[in-house]
Amino acid sequence: MDSAVCLAEAMAESFEVHALSFDYGQRHDVELAASKLVARAGAAVSHRVVQLDLRSLGGSALTDSIDVPMSRSEDEIGEGIPVTYVPARNTVFLSIALGWAEVLGARDIYIGVNALDYSGYPDCRREFLEAFERLAGVATAAGAEEEARFRVRAPLLELSKADIVRRANELGVDLGLTHTCYSPELIDGVVHSCGACDACSLRLRGFAEAGETDPLPYLPAPKNR
Amino acid sequence: MDSAVCLAEAMAESFEVHALSFDYGQRHDVELAASKLVARAGAAVSHRVVQLDLRSLGGSALTDSIDVPMSRSEDEIGEGIPVTYVPARNTVFLSIALGWAEVLGARDIYIGVNALDYSGYPDCRREFLEAFERLAGVATAAGAEEEARFRVRAPLLELSKADIVRRANELGVDLGLTHTCYSPELIDGVVHSCGACDACSLRLRGFAEAGETDPLPYLPAPKNR
Repeated sequence: MDSAVCLAEAMAESFEVHALSFDYGQRHDVELAASKLVARAGAAVSHRVVQLDLRSLGGSALTDSIDVPMSRSEDEIGEGIPVTYVPARNTVFLSIALGWAEVLGARDIYIGVNALDYSGYPDCRREFLEAFERLAGVATAAGAEEEARFRVRAPLLELSKADIVRRANELGVDLGLTHTCYSPELIDGVVHSCGACDACSLRLRGFAEAGETDPLPYLPAPKNR
Repeated sequence: MDSAVCLAEAMAESFEVHALSFDYGQRHDVELAASKLVARAGAAVSHRVVQLDLRSLGGSALTDSIDVPMSRSEDEIGEGIPVTYVPARNTVFLSIALGWAEVLGARDIYIGVNALDYSGYPDCRREFLEAFERLAGVATAAGAEEEARFRVRAPLLELSKADIVRRANELGVDLGLTHTCYSPELIDGVVHSCGACDACSLRLRGFAEAGETDPLPYLPAPKNR
């Protein structure tokens, strides 16, 4: 959802968008199928999926076999570093995006990070993004030229999930193509979101607060409720 | 060769070493086989190889089908950004190492970069390593604690290739286990280095300047000479 709105924000700024997704051993690989639909619907010029197996390094419920927490309150979700935190994930993603940007001759790197709903993730803060911009300036052949500095753009950084739902509507983003759930189930060939994991909880609250209905199918009787 | 000496430098500082290699679609995958021997000989506690397919992003003679340049003079090698430069490679490698360091509870990240012989690579300079240290401080859950800052250590940064050969001898590193050539050939099951690519040229000059003989087998009649 955040990536789809992020792509639309870049298009609204008249950028030619080259979309980048990561197959990093996440358990919710439904996300990658959704990314292809989102990139096409968002009129990206190209879309690449980079294989990156972080499972061998361990350390996260999204790539390990640790259970994803269910049905937690908003306070619990906002508390501390979530177990779903993938170590240095956004650093790795931005680094690879930086490499591709250099190959493409692009200077603007968009990332759909959000500081409000994920306050426990250190790599979703403005401070982190600014440090990455500084690094990019000295890390690359291109960035060394004064007039050709890389910019990391995070248009969703200060938005709530409800703001993001509203922004999607304004920009004409079809949120029915997106995927959020950490623990989806396939029923009769259709992906159903669980409605109970942290990601689903934040998404559903966002739709509720924006006064909108989520177009995605959910399990009829959410697990662990 | 640089990685092997780097590992030995970390051991000399009494660190418990967890070694990390990258299978990033490099054409010289002989390097990965060598890394296993080097990690074992260097008494690393563990050794992981992370799959990371950068080929899909293009942009380098090491992962594309562009020809690796041969038989260039030292001046030519030192001039500008080499075509063998992989965009943002060390940024990506350090980011993944940072993630693993966080999982392991490690704070010291060793990298065998060298500013002298690779002056054309922007991500082999002290300025880059310092910017990465600053990024690491804000990118991770662990690095946020004041007393637990990450350190990027590059003991080979200011050494010439001859210095590195001498240091290998002092530390008892078997350079016969290492691999350097961008364009090796298998003859009767034995990997032979070409002796003519930039990497071989720098290595052979290093041995010559140090007054040592390279234990590696080379092609009897080097290509393009």
